[in-house]
Amino acid sequence: MMHGGAGALAGLQSLLGPAQFLTAAADVEPFLVDQRKLYRGRALGVVLPRNVEDVSRILRFCGDARIGVVPHGGNTSYCGGATPDESGTQLVLSLRRLNRVRGVDALNSAMVVEAGCLLTNVQQAATAAGLFFPLSLGSQGSCQIGGNLATNAGGTNVLRYGMMRDLVLGLEVVTADGRVLSSLPPLRKDNTGYDLKSLFVGSEGTLGVITAATLKLFPAQRSVATALVAVLDVAAAVELLRALRQESGDTVSSFELIPRAALDLTLRHVPGVANPFGQPFDWCVLIELSSSRRDDTLHPLLESVLSSAAARGAVLDAVLAKNDRERAQFWRIRENIPEAQRKHGASLKHDISVPVASMPDFIARAGSWIEANVPDGVLVAYGHVGDGNLHFNISQAEASSASSFLAREASIKRVIHDLVRDFGGSFSAEHGIGRLKVGELAQYSTPAELALMRSIKVAFDPRGIMNPGKVLAV
Amino acid sequence: MMHGGAGALAGLQSLLGPAQFLTAAADVEPFLVDQRKLYRGRALGVVLPRNVEDVSRILRFCGDARIGVVPHGGNTSYCGGATPDESGTQLVLSLRRLNRVRGVDALNSAMVVEAGCLLTNVQQAATAAGLFFPLSLGSQGSCQIGGNLATNAGGTNVLRYGMMRDLVLGLEVVTADGRVLSSLPPLRKDNTGYDLKSLFVGSEGTLGVITAATLKLFPAQRSVATALVAVLDVAAAVELLRALRQESGDTVSSFELIPRAALDLTLRHVPGVANPFGQPFDWCVLIELSSSRRDDTLHPLLESVLSSAAARGAVLDAVLAKNDRERAQFWRIRENIPEAQRKHGASLKHDISVPVASMPDFIARAGSWIEANVPDGVLVAYGHVGDGNLHFNISQAEASSASSFLAREASIKRVIHDLVRDFGGSFSAEHGIGRLKVGELAQYSTPAELALMRSIKVAFDPRGIMNPGKVLAV
Repeated sequence: MMHGGAGALAGLQSLLGPAQFLTAAADVEPFLVDQRKLYRGRALGVVLPRNVEDVSRILRFCGDARIGVVPHGGNTSYCGGATPDESGTQLVLSLRRLNRVRGVDALNSAMVVEAGCLLTNVQQAATAAGLFFPLSLGSQGSCQIGGNLATNAGGTNVLRYGMMRDLVLGLEVVTADGRVLSSLPPLRKDNTGYDLKSLFVGSEGTLGVITAATLKLFPAQRSVATALVAVLDVAAAVELLRALRQESGDTVSSFELIPRAALDLTLRHVPGVANPFGQPFDWCVLIELSSSRRDDTLHPLLESVLSSAAARGAVLDAVLAKNDRERAQFWRIRENIPEAQRKHGASLKHDISVPVASMPDFIARAGSWIEANVPDGVLVAYGHVGDGNLHFNISQAEASSASSFLAREASIKRVIHDLVRDFGGSFSAEHGIGRLKVGELAQYSTPAELALMRSIKVAFDPRGIMNPGKVLAV
Repeated sequence: MMHGGAGALAGLQSLLGPAQFLTAAADVEPFLVDQRKLYRGRALGVVLPRNVEDVSRILRFCGDARIGVVPHGGNTSYCGGATPDESGTQLVLSLRRLNRVRGVDALNSAMVVEAGCLLTNVQQAATAAGLFFPLSLGSQGSCQIGGNLATNAGGTNVLRYGMMRDLVLGLEVVTADGRVLSSLPPLRKDNTGYDLKSLFVGSEGTLGVITAATLKLFPAQRSVATALVAVLDVAAAVELLRALRQESGDTVSSFELIPRAALDLTLRHVPGVANPFGQPFDWCVLIELSSSRRDDTLHPLLESVLSSAAARGAVLDAVLAKNDRERAQFWRIRENIPEAQRKHGASLKHDISVPVASMPDFIARAGSWIEANVPDGVLVAYGHVGDGNLHFNISQAEASSASSFLAREASIKRVIHDLVRDFGGSFSAEHGIGRLKVGELAQYSTPAELALMRSIKVAFDPRGIMNPGKVLAV
């Protein structure tokens, strides 16, 4: 048992050579801090395997030496999932050199990609083959598909296409003992035993390292209709979604809530964002229908459903994008909300979900509590209302003290998450657990659930080397 | 440790009372034989719990007494998954009394159903609420949703809606130690730890007993276009599927291959089935597009794609259903293939999948081998070509001996399944493992996969009481 001493360093150096094992402080530095700057870790070093065999050799070595391994993708985790702890005994394993698109297979509507591919590159490779890969996230220019897999990423197309787990046909994984599980043929149906694939997806590197995946592709989208719609309230939005799914042939791909506070922040802090309505509204939704049919009648369909909703008072105003430029303007509002919040000041973030139909009640109850109890905060609850998933954030109010605002983070979080639980919801809808929410998972899971998860962890990683301290406290 | 002795019987009797514990031979008999009559087991008796608490008490008792428990639904397994072994020491646990639809929730597009609900009842409850539950199987009038969950059932709508695992939002499960995991809120997104739900689905009662589930519903289908299409060959069918998905806005819900041998068998053995073409064709596909739009233009869309395909020689003839009666006639052909095979004589069944694009090659190679090596058999390879899943069956030829034909089952299976493996396919696409394919799972899984599956089994069911002898030999 070396636990990261000089022997481990020497062993890794002789195993890998200097080009694959970074130890100089300047080289290692970018891997030690998560993107939200919640954590600053230390590390033995950073390994840069070039292929799955390298990953296997590294895990075998680390298993024997009991060295904790922290898989690292695009470093866009919101929960510190890819950052080593402060001990200096963990090894960062970067997947960035495994970045090939191994192949796009149009007749099978599938592609095989390595973990280190940027999400945008995956999307573009699908498009180049006349197909469509639907996962779409704010960080798609820097996040890697391996991280999307490890965290079961969500984003703005989940309503129609599901989360990352739903978009995977096969995986290549290196387990904690260095064995390679390779199951990459693009099979649509395979009932041979337990669903190992779904277990690795979303396990955040604590059960093994995903090195490649076969992804499900869809027909290219050739018609789109996008609208920014002012609705009476959140209940009107939920009912509009139901009607629109029915009447549009279930072609709703995005349905994103933008409350007045979020629109105001982007108007103020992001250059080039304009309010397409003449006046302010309390609640807007950004709606997109899409279809692979050429000349599909999505535009008149959307107009007709919005008109009916307007007639009964549920829709107050609506602007349909007439072209790609206008469509991009609408999306610019939605996509810049996190950036606008960042520029505005401190914020308390909650990545929650509740049943879609409970959204209005949840927002009303949580909103009142915040109004009454967090006078130095402004609720900015935006996001994937079609999935019941809101980024239920509280921004620091004008002229308040960031430090006294942030000092209440833990107690405010407890109230919000307790309320989420009372609504049957989840305190982690799409961002995962990482290090940030290990305590929340222990708090809100039942003992039976925790016991099963722990038993899986111990079964898959008996020496506890895979991303120690993430997901489960163990 | 009682292992099913008189003490166990007395214990169960006092735990449950006679109305919930059947031991008389005539009462127990229907639970001892699977529907294909592959196995005849014996049993301590049959328990008929009324609710999840009963299931919990039964599993606690059986855990302490080391009694094997065989969960039992509609008894429609093709692999003997719900039949007790010959020891007489196992207890059958029937879910039939847990048969309530607990609720349909239109705004959340979800419903909560108990495991013992018939699939047809689930479908009808969704329809009654103006929604649609897409799982559709030949046995839907007798199979139970709990069995569909336990086996990750497939069927004729997988292409569009996925398998059973894709249709589940939440589960209520009793684990091997009698604890109840209840996670039924209709959440669309929930990244709180490992995906226990996907693990229980498809585990065939070997990890716990599913007692209820929250199912995902879809907008009601209001337009449909159905056609029986004669294609040049299997490659033409695969290319037609790709074009149709693209041009139809991905509304293809079924795409089923019917080879000439299958059509001939149904024409011969099933009253009321007619060949809608004037002449025989080697390969047909039954195609269905569906949409929740009223008056969607599916019919002209389908005609247009078929015309283009006909112009390049890929489609030889096509008949579009003009009304529901004609639609039902087309489906009658497809749905009666298993029955026609049964009436015709003995058959060797293989539930295989390969990548969709490999179907033509696979059928050609396996077909030639059968022609050369099984002179007393006729290939009847039909089914879900859109999913790469064929029921690759060999029917006994006219005037051959059933016993000498069946005597070769094991060696023929080995050749077919080896070829499936060479194509990167699966020997169990949708029917699961049960008891029938335990040996195949051990044969075709890698040691690493088997080790992980075994470790899950041991972690979830350390005393080995859950459906012993199914899925894994352990």
